[in-house]
Amino acid sequence: VRDLTPLFAPRSIAVVGASSNLMGLAGRPIAYLSESGLDIAVYPVNPTRDEIGGFKVYPDPASLPEAPDVGLVVVPAAAVVDAIEGLAKRGCKVAVVISSGFGEGDRAEGADAQDRMRDIAREHGMLLLGPNTLGVHDYVRGLPLSFVWYGRKAVSEVGSVAVVSQSGSGMTSLCDRMLDAGIPLGYGVATGNEADVTIVDILEHLAEDPKVKVIATVFEEIREGARFLKVCQRLRDLGKPLIAMKVGRTESGSAMVKSHTGALAGSYPTLQALMRQYGVLEVTDLDQIPPMVAVAALGKLPTSNSIAVVTNSGGAAAISADRADELGVKLAELSPATQVKVKENLPDFAQEQPVHNPIDVTAQSMQKRFALVDIVEALLEDDGVGAVIHAVPSSGGPEGGQWVDKYCGLSHNATKPVVGVILSGRESDHLRNRLRDGNVPVLSSPGEAVEAISLLHRFVSAPTSTQIAAVASRSTAAPVSLPAVITENTTLNWLAEYGVPVASQRLAADAAGAVAAANELGYPVAVKISSPDIAHKTEVGGVVLGLTSAEEVAVATARVMANAAAAAPHAALEGVTVSRMVKPVLELISGIHKDDTFGHVILLGLGGIWAEILGDVTMRGLPLGPDASERMVDELQGAPLLRGARGRTPVNTKSLAALIDALARIVADHGDALGGLDLNPVAVTEDGEIVVLDAALYLADR
Amino acid sequence: VRDLTPLFAPRSIAVVGASSNLMGLAGRPIAYLSESGLDIAVYPVNPTRDEIGGFKVYPDPASLPEAPDVGLVVVPAAAVVDAIEGLAKRGCKVAVVISSGFGEGDRAEGADAQDRMRDIAREHGMLLLGPNTLGVHDYVRGLPLSFVWYGRKAVSEVGSVAVVSQSGSGMTSLCDRMLDAGIPLGYGVATGNEADVTIVDILEHLAEDPKVKVIATVFEEIREGARFLKVCQRLRDLGKPLIAMKVGRTESGSAMVKSHTGALAGSYPTLQALMRQYGVLEVTDLDQIPPMVAVAALGKLPTSNSIAVVTNSGGAAAISADRADELGVKLAELSPATQVKVKENLPDFAQEQPVHNPIDVTAQSMQKRFALVDIVEALLEDDGVGAVIHAVPSSGGPEGGQWVDKYCGLSHNATKPVVGVILSGRESDHLRNRLRDGNVPVLSSPGEAVEAISLLHRFVSAPTSTQIAAVASRSTAAPVSLPAVITENTTLNWLAEYGVPVASQRLAADAAGAVAAANELGYPVAVKISSPDIAHKTEVGGVVLGLTSAEEVAVATARVMANAAAAAPHAALEGVTVSRMVKPVLELISGIHKDDTFGHVILLGLGGIWAEILGDVTMRGLPLGPDASERMVDELQGAPLLRGARGRTPVNTKSLAALIDALARIVADHGDALGGLDLNPVAVTEDGEIVVLDAALYLADR
Repeated sequence: VRDLTPLFAPRSIAVVGASSNLMGLAGRPIAYLSESGLDIAVYPVNPTRDEIGGFKVYPDPASLPEAPDVGLVVVPAAAVVDAIEGLAKRGCKVAVVISSGFGEGDRAEGADAQDRMRDIAREHGMLLLGPNTLGVHDYVRGLPLSFVWYGRKAVSEVGSVAVVSQSGSGMTSLCDRMLDAGIPLGYGVATGNEADVTIVDILEHLAEDPKVKVIATVFEEIREGARFLKVCQRLRDLGKPLIAMKVGRTESGSAMVKSHTGALAGSYPTLQALMRQYGVLEVTDLDQIPPMVAVAALGKLPTSNSIAVVTNSGGAAAISADRADELGVKLAELSPATQVKVKENLPDFAQEQPVHNPIDVTAQSMQKRFALVDIVEALLEDDGVGAVIHAVPSSGGPEGGQWVDKYCGLSHNATKPVVGVILSGRESDHLRNRLRDGNVPVLSSPGEAVEAISLLHRFVSAPTSTQIAAVASRSTAAPVSLPAVITENTTLNWLAEYGVPVASQRLAADAAGAVAAANELGYPVAVKISSPDIAHKTEVGGVVLGLTSAEEVAVATARVMANAAAAAPHAALEGVTVSRMVKPVLELISGIHKDDTFGHVILLGLGGIWAEILGDVTMRGLPLGPDASERMVDELQGAPLLRGARGRTPVNTKSLAALIDALARIVADHGDALGGLDLNPVAVTEDGEIVVLDAALYLADR
Repeated sequence: VRDLTPLFAPRSIAVVGASSNLMGLAGRPIAYLSESGLDIAVYPVNPTRDEIGGFKVYPDPASLPEAPDVGLVVVPAAAVVDAIEGLAKRGCKVAVVISSGFGEGDRAEGADAQDRMRDIAREHGMLLLGPNTLGVHDYVRGLPLSFVWYGRKAVSEVGSVAVVSQSGSGMTSLCDRMLDAGIPLGYGVATGNEADVTIVDILEHLAEDPKVKVIATVFEEIREGARFLKVCQRLRDLGKPLIAMKVGRTESGSAMVKSHTGALAGSYPTLQALMRQYGVLEVTDLDQIPPMVAVAALGKLPTSNSIAVVTNSGGAAAISADRADELGVKLAELSPATQVKVKENLPDFAQEQPVHNPIDVTAQSMQKRFALVDIVEALLEDDGVGAVIHAVPSSGGPEGGQWVDKYCGLSHNATKPVVGVILSGRESDHLRNRLRDGNVPVLSSPGEAVEAISLLHRFVSAPTSTQIAAVASRSTAAPVSLPAVITENTTLNWLAEYGVPVASQRLAADAAGAVAAANELGYPVAVKISSPDIAHKTEVGGVVLGLTSAEEVAVATARVMANAAAAAPHAALEGVTVSRMVKPVLELISGIHKDDTFGHVILLGLGGIWAEILGDVTMRGLPLGPDASERMVDELQGAPLLRGARGRTPVNTKSLAALIDALARIVADHGDALGGLDLNPVAVTEDGEIVVLDAALYLADR
C-alpha cells in the first residue's frame, strides 16, 4: 500500500499557479483553504505576485520554505511538467495535478507529457494524483484540494462514506446528491487520468481508514487487476461494502471511454463476474448509488436473504413483492409468535386470515398510530427475517407522527437493517429528515430498498479470506506435467490425470488402429484428426461423427487423414483420435481464460446457442472460495437446466465441483505457462454425469 | 365511453358524512372545496349538524335542493350502501366513495357490499367511483374530491399530464413527485376498488380531453382487456403517450395484489406483449415515472431511434453510450455539415480527429460558454438525429450561464425532443429551475434520458389505426371450416388449407397402410397414434420417431396401436399418422392462445429449453399491424438465431409472415369457437424454411 497520508491529512500545501482572482479556477483552491480555517501551511506559488488571499507568495517551488505535503498544480497544461519537476526537486510528497489537456482525447503529445510527469515524480519518490483530477474533498474537515467544492453546505462529523471516481464530474455530482440525501460523507476523490496514483491506490488507503465504512466508486478502467481484487477481499474481510459502477460496459460505451481517456477498456464480463465473486455491489446507473450507500452506511448487514415488508400501501406491498421475486430475494415466512404480534396491529377484517408478508396494514390502520412501528419491532425479533423494509406513501400527517421516535430507537438497537421508504416527494421532507436524523435510511421506492438489501446480502455472502484459505489449503496432490506434444488426445489424457472425466478415446496411427480402437471403445464413435499443428480440426475436414461400424471407421480415418494432408500439408499428422460418442442432454463449456487485467479465471457456462446468443457464462478468479461450482451454477441464466427443471436429472454437483477444482489446481500448478484451456463441449449425460468431449490447450506466449 | 363530465367538471357536490372537524378525514373535503373558491354548489350531508365550513347542511341525500353532479361519500363502511341508495334516488350523477373496508383483504362480506352498491348505482343510472378511492384531484382548478391534497403548493395552468392509479397512495405520491419536478400536472385520479368505474373508463375520458397530452397509470389489474387495448390505440392515434406500470408482475407480487384487492391478476406476459404492441411505455418502478412523464410532456416525439448526446462530462458521455447499447438505441452518425459545426465548438486537441457521438466537449470547453448550446443547435438541424440529450454535471457557475436562454429557445422551436440532464443534486436547482421554466425537461441521469427517448420511440413506432386498417383489409379468402374430427392429421391438413407449411404426413389405418405411406413420403418417418380422444400422444406410448425402413414402420405401428389401446381403452383409434421426419436447425413454438382478459392472441417463440427456461415468447393481439411477424421476431431474446447469427441461414421472413397472417385469419374466421392452437414444434430447416411438425387444436368450452 502506498502511503497516501500526506494527501489525505496534509500539514502544508503549495498551490503552483495560484491566481489572485479568488473566484477563478486557479484562485478558488486558495479561497477554500483560507475558508477552511484549518491549521495547514498554505504556500501560493506565482512568479508575479507577492500575496494572494492573505498568504505570502513564492516565485517557484524551489523557494518554498519547506517541502510541502501536497503540491496543488493549477498551471496551464504546457507548464505542468516544469511545475512537477520543481515540486519533486523541493521534496514535495504528493503532487495533485488539476490541470487538464493530457491523456484525454487521444492526444499522443499529452500522453507523452503525462509519462514525463510520472517518470519525474517516481524518480524523486513523489506521488502524483491526476492530471485532470478534481482532487480530494475532505467533508469532515471541510477541505477541498480542488477548484470545485459542494461541501460547504454540509460537513459531516461521521464521515463514514467515501466516493472515489476517475471522473471528476462523477465524483462531485455524486457527493452533491449524497449531501442532499443526508448521507455522512467523508471523502470525495477523483483520480483523473491516473498518470501515477490510481483508483486502486485510493481504495487501499481508504480500506484502512477506520472512519470509512462504505465506499462508492465509479470507474472506467481498472488497470491493476490483482490488486483491485485484493482490496475488494480486504473490504469484504473488514465488513466495508464497496458499491461500484463500471462506465463503458458496452461496445459504444467502451469506445467512448477509449476516446476520452485513451485507455483500453478491459473485459467487462470478466470484471462483472469477479466483482460478484468478491461481493462488490455493482450498480449500472449513478441514480442507484445514493440510495444504496444510504442503506450500506447504516452499518448493519442483512442476516439472511429473507426480508419482511410492512406498509400501509397495498401498492408498495405488491411492488416490493415483485422486486423480491425478480431479484431472487425471499419474502420471509414469519414465525407463529411474530404472526400473533403482527395481527394485534392489523384491522379487524384481517384477523381471520393468515398473515401475508409483505404486511399491508391498509389505510384502515391510519388511526392506530403505532401499528407499523409495533410490527417493525416484532419483525426485528424474528430470526427468520434478515432485514426489514418499512414503506409509507407519505408522512400521513403534518408532524409525521409520534411513532418516529420509537421507530428510530428500534432501528438504532437492531442488529439487522431497517430501511425506510417514503413514496411521496418533498411533501414528506419533514418526516424524511426526522428519520434520517434518527439514522434510518429513507429511499423513494420499495423496489430500490429490496435491491439494496439484495446487494448487501451478496456482500455478506462473499467468502472472507479465512473461509477461502480453509478451502484453498485442501489440495496436496503433486502437479501433473503439461503434455509434451499438445493434441486433443494428450490434453484429454492430461485432464484425466487431474481427475477430470473425459470422453473415452484412443489415438490410432491408421485405419486398422482406428478400427481396433473403435471395437474396444464400442460404437458409435467419432474420428478426428490428431496433430499438434491443427487446432481447428473441423476446418480441415478432420472430423467425422456418428460412425457405427468398423467399415465406416476405416473409411472415415482414411478420409480425414487425406483431408488434413491436403488442407495442412506442413502439419505433423499423428493419426486420428477415436472417441466413443456420448449423447449429451445438455452441453456446457468450461475452461481457463487468461484475462489481460485479471489473469487466469475459470469459466463455466451453457454451451451451444446459449453461449453464442446469450453469453450465459460465468467466471471465477483464484483462489476459489467455498462452494465455488455451486455458486457458478447459480449465476447462470440456464441454472434451472442444471438443477433438474422439468423432470431433468440434475447435474451431479460433485462431478461439477471436481471439474472446477481440477481447473483451479491446473492454474495453481501451471499458471504462468498457461495461455488458455477450452473445454467445449462438456457433456451432461442423461444420468447427470459430466464428460469433457473435446479440449484445446494453449500455452502462454512468452 | 361513459360520460364522466360530471366527475371531472362538477357544478354541485354533496358530501355525505361530512364532519365539522375540518382537519379530519370527513371534514377535509369541505375545507378543500371552500378553499378552492370555485363556483360549485357544496352540500354537506349530516343529520346532526346545521352548518359546516360555512355551508348549509342537509340531513340526508333526499333533502338536497338539487340532484348533485357528485356525491362524495365519507361515511363509515357500514353506512355506505345506504348513502349510495340515498344519492342514487336523489338523481346524483356520480358517487365518489372514499370510505374503505370492502373488497380489500379477501373479505367476502365487503365484496358483497361492493356488489350491492354497484347494483344500486347501475339501477339508477348513477356512476360510482371507488370505494376506497382517493378521488379525483384537479390541479388546474385546484379542486380535490378527496381528503388528501398535495396540490395546494402548485397549480398548473397547462395541466397536460394526468395520473391514473388504482392505488390511492400510488396516485398521490406520484403527483407529489411530479409537482416537485415542475411537471404540468392536470389530474390525479384514483379508482380504488373499482366497484363500477374502472381505470379504463378514466383513460377513455382523459384520452378525449384536449388539455391532456400525457397519461401515467399504475394498476394492479385491467379487467376490460379489449377496451383497454382500444383506448391504447386511441391514445396512439392522438399522439398522447401512455406510461404504464403494472403492479403484481411476479408470482409473489400478484399474490399480494390478490390478497389486498381480492382481484385475480391476469396473465402478465400477455399484457406486457400487448402493451408493447400498442406503444404503451411500460415502466417497472415508480421512480421511472416522473422523468419519463417530464420528457413525454414536452409534446415532441423522437423522429427516429438515433440519438445524439452532447456533454462536458466524459463520464456522462460513456454512460449514455452504455445505456444506448443496452436498450438498442442508435448513436446517430452525424452528417458532414454537422461535424463541421460541432468541431467549431470543440477544444483544439479534438480538431484533428473525427467527431464522436456522444460528443464530449471536455472540461476544456468550460470557458467557451456557448459551446454546448451551439452544438445542440447543429444537432437539431441534422435530419439523422432523432432526439438530443444535453448532459452537464452541474450548473458550472453561480447563475447557470447565459446560454440557458438560447438553449430554451432552441428547445421551444425544435421539432424533436431536447432532454436535459444535470448530474448533481440541489446544488444545481437554480439551473434546473431555469431550464424547466423554459420547458426543457431535466433528468438526473443520462441513462434515464436514453431510456425515455427509447420508450417514446417505441410509442411512435406502434402503428396507428389507419396503418393497421390498411393491413387488415388485405385478406379476402373464404374461411376454411374447422375439422369435423380433431386429430393431429386433420389439424395439419386444415392448417395447410390456410397456407401454413406443415410436415408431409398421411393417416394410415394399420401397419400395411403405414408402410405404404412411409414409402410414399420417404424415410426417415415418425409414427404417431391418431385419435380425437388422445391429446398427449407421448404419454400413452403413442409416438415412435426416426424409423428408417418399412419393417421398422410396421413394428412401430403395431406397437403404438397396442400401447394406445392399453393406455386409453375408451379412445377411438383411427390408426397412425405417418410423418416425414424433418431435422430442424432450430425449433420454434407458435399458435393461438385465448387470454381470459384480452381474448385471442397469436404467439411466437423459441422452442425447447428456450421456451421452458427463458420463456422467450412474444404475443400479438388482433388485428395485426404492419410487419407483425418481423416485429415479433425482434422482440425475442433469441432473435439473432432467426436473423442469421453465426453463419446460420436466416429464417425466410415471408414464410414466417405467412404463418402469422394465417393464424390471424384463423382467429378472424373462427374466433369464438377457438379455445387454442398449439404449433409445437415449428421447425426451422437448414435452408431457413419453416414447417409445422405437430399441432393441437382446442375448441372453446361453450
